[in-house]
Amino acid sequence: MTSAEALSNDISGLMHELGRRARAAAGALAIASAERKHAALAGAAQAVDANRAAILDANGLDMANARDKGMSAAFQDRLLLDDARLDGIVDALRAIAELPDPVGTVIAEWDRPNGLHIERVRTPLGVIGVIYESRPNVTADAGALCLKSGNAVILRGGSDSVHSSQALVECLRLGLAQAGLPEDAVQLVPTTDRAAVGEMLKGLAGNIDVIVPRGGKSLVGRVQSEARVPVFAHLEGLVHVYIDRSAELDKAVAVTLNAKMRRTGICGAAETLLVHEDVAGTHLGPILEALMARGCEIRGDAAVMARVPAARPATEEDWRTEYEDAIIAVKIVPSLEAAIGHIEHYSSHHTEAIIAEDPAAVEKFFAGVDSAILVHNASTQFADGGEFGFGGEIGIATGKMHARGPVGVEQLTSFKYRVRGNGQLRP
Amino acid sequence: MTSAEALSNDISGLMHELGRRARAAAGALAIASAERKHAALAGAAQAVDANRAAILDANGLDMANARDKGMSAAFQDRLLLDDARLDGIVDALRAIAELPDPVGTVIAEWDRPNGLHIERVRTPLGVIGVIYESRPNVTADAGALCLKSGNAVILRGGSDSVHSSQALVECLRLGLAQAGLPEDAVQLVPTTDRAAVGEMLKGLAGNIDVIVPRGGKSLVGRVQSEARVPVFAHLEGLVHVYIDRSAELDKAVAVTLNAKMRRTGICGAAETLLVHEDVAGTHLGPILEALMARGCEIRGDAAVMARVPAARPATEEDWRTEYEDAIIAVKIVPSLEAAIGHIEHYSSHHTEAIIAEDPAAVEKFFAGVDSAILVHNASTQFADGGEFGFGGEIGIATGKMHARGPVGVEQLTSFKYRVRGNGQLRP
Repeated sequence: MTSAEALSNDISGLMHELGRRARAAAGALAIASAERKHAALAGAAQAVDANRAAILDANGLDMANARDKGMSAAFQDRLLLDDARLDGIVDALRAIAELPDPVGTVIAEWDRPNGLHIERVRTPLGVIGVIYESRPNVTADAGALCLKSGNAVILRGGSDSVHSSQALVECLRLGLAQAGLPEDAVQLVPTTDRAAVGEMLKGLAGNIDVIVPRGGKSLVGRVQSEARVPVFAHLEGLVHVYIDRSAELDKAVAVTLNAKMRRTGICGAAETLLVHEDVAGTHLGPILEALMARGCEIRGDAAVMARVPAARPATEEDWRTEYEDAIIAVKIVPSLEAAIGHIEHYSSHHTEAIIAEDPAAVEKFFAGVDSAILVHNASTQFADGGEFGFGGEIGIATGKMHARGPVGVEQLTSFKYRVRGNGQLRP
Repeated sequence: MTSAEALSNDISGLMHELGRRARAAAGALAIASAERKHAALAGAAQAVDANRAAILDANGLDMANARDKGMSAAFQDRLLLDDARLDGIVDALRAIAELPDPVGTVIAEWDRPNGLHIERVRTPLGVIGVIYESRPNVTADAGALCLKSGNAVILRGGSDSVHSSQALVECLRLGLAQAGLPEDAVQLVPTTDRAAVGEMLKGLAGNIDVIVPRGGKSLVGRVQSEARVPVFAHLEGLVHVYIDRSAELDKAVAVTLNAKMRRTGICGAAETLLVHEDVAGTHLGPILEALMARGCEIRGDAAVMARVPAARPATEEDWRTEYEDAIIAVKIVPSLEAAIGHIEHYSSHHTEAIIAEDPAAVEKFFAGVDSAILVHNASTQFADGGEFGFGGEIGIATGKMHARGPVGVEQLTSFKYRVRGNGQLRP
């Protein structure tokens, strides 16, 4: 055996041991009472609050390393913890603690003619693997959402946040221990070797039930292409706003501006604007002027270029691009149907909006566009588990299998059937 | 290129073309009205009824081939169509036509403090691949359930039923065409080459969203291990019946007998009986005598052997065996907890029953056993989509992702969010 093989075996063995521990903890967590899970989360929040100095010290190590490595200012900002951000983490843990416990909830129930009473009830999924970049707050959020939904979690944070993540995981494990629940319900991968990610994607011999990647396209793309277990994720948010011929001008301007410019780097930010040609004369100018006044670059098709000389010409590539920046691609479409056709062709099926006063147009858009989230007369930046009232999200999924849209605690559950009889035999 | 490579390329190309057609048809079907889908299914039922002679002729070809190949009587019985079985197919198509249309159903809706109204509505999954053995009725059932739920389907039936399946698929496609829907919503793989299955398992370049295998363990096992897309399936039904110390004797005898002996070859048939030691003296004898009187072989642990000399000794292998035959493994357990422990260790997580009058024991069993279907005081043979009121099933799933238990039209759907606003901007 070469030393590289020996190291690879070590990591495989280490990861499989993590998987076994997670599975054992998941069994205990699945039948834990709502009170115990609440206590564990409240305890974790308390532990973060009480251990601010230690957490900030750990984060200081990570920050020093990041500076030494010359990481970008944006990277360092995502990595940084301070007292205000710790307040946010404590609040998030408390908010997740207070969510209704999804496990055991009766989703549906009915009686059969033979007297059988059937209930469909929520159960945990099992073990969730979360792979994310160097954002310490994801450690607390993801761990807490998995715990609330009765799942064990294996967290693999970015290597540059290892000290911060370890300090936060210790708080979650302290909360679990104090509540009489197995600490191994929350485990952090104790190596920064990338081979550990490969092992997670193979599913740890059946001990990971679903993988949630949180991060940029290269991370999500790798997970989606290599994972041998289900993945809840979105690769892109190529979000469209369509201005219908029935759109009110003020709403069209305000919503488009918010959808594009409130924050340009999030997955719910608009990337392409489609305008019905019947309102191109009235609506296009004010919308684009408002965007340009906020520093947004316009890339238009020929019809847009003819009306707005300050625009730059859009190429085919622009309709496929998630800018994540102050740039928007703009196209004039001859009809609602053409808008739906463009979206179905180019969209990443994350979130799309229609601005319209005509109810028939809205219903046609809602039926014809197959994206996770469709919005009428409101900003696409509401595409967020917190804004949906889920009390947080572990991510947003654009797949159609199991979870879709913001993934909160409910979508981290499965279900089983409870059938109650009184001696019924099948004829 | 060798001729084998050329053939393999041909099949790959053929299958990918099927996939493209299915995806295009799925787009049209997803927005088809409930009326059109109903009309297509009613038309298909009518077409089967009107083309009995042609279907029976086609089945005659398959039967003659099966006889020539010396297939078993059981195989030929599954393959056979006659007027009574065509009646069953016509009735099943009509029953599925009459089911409520799941697509567009609002599963949940709520208002946010900012005035946004959010709805979660059912949508089709897309394209479903069904791989099954030589049972012509699965062609009609699976095709109809997919169509009702707005999905396109690619059917790959057993090679020995190819003429029968083709005749039934033509009826489904006639129904679609008469209703103004794309015929390619239902396609039968036009080759019996097994390479076609391999192509389906790879997902046809993203044009199959989920695979449903229907058949024996070797088929399901191959699909589960090779598929690169989600699979709704169960590999085994290693079903347990537990007789609690609070069980009423008459119910225990009648339910166990029905669970084991009504039909021994179906996945909901009991395979292992666990009896609480406190009622071994009163309940074990009558239950086993009733089973033996019906020709069931008993394989018991040492405690069972001591009480029932007619039993044969069970080995470790017996606790892991789905007999699908008139054989039952029997064990005496010291407690409810021991029964749950045995089930969690050996079960295939399909269906388990508890016979008990003590509500606390029932709740403990329902919470502690993580199988798709848990039954109290009724036969495990109710594990069936029809018996659940689903109007049919495409299969029973033991995985926890998306579908679990009997898979009816609802579980062949995904969902999306419709968010209705009045100009809301995200702060």
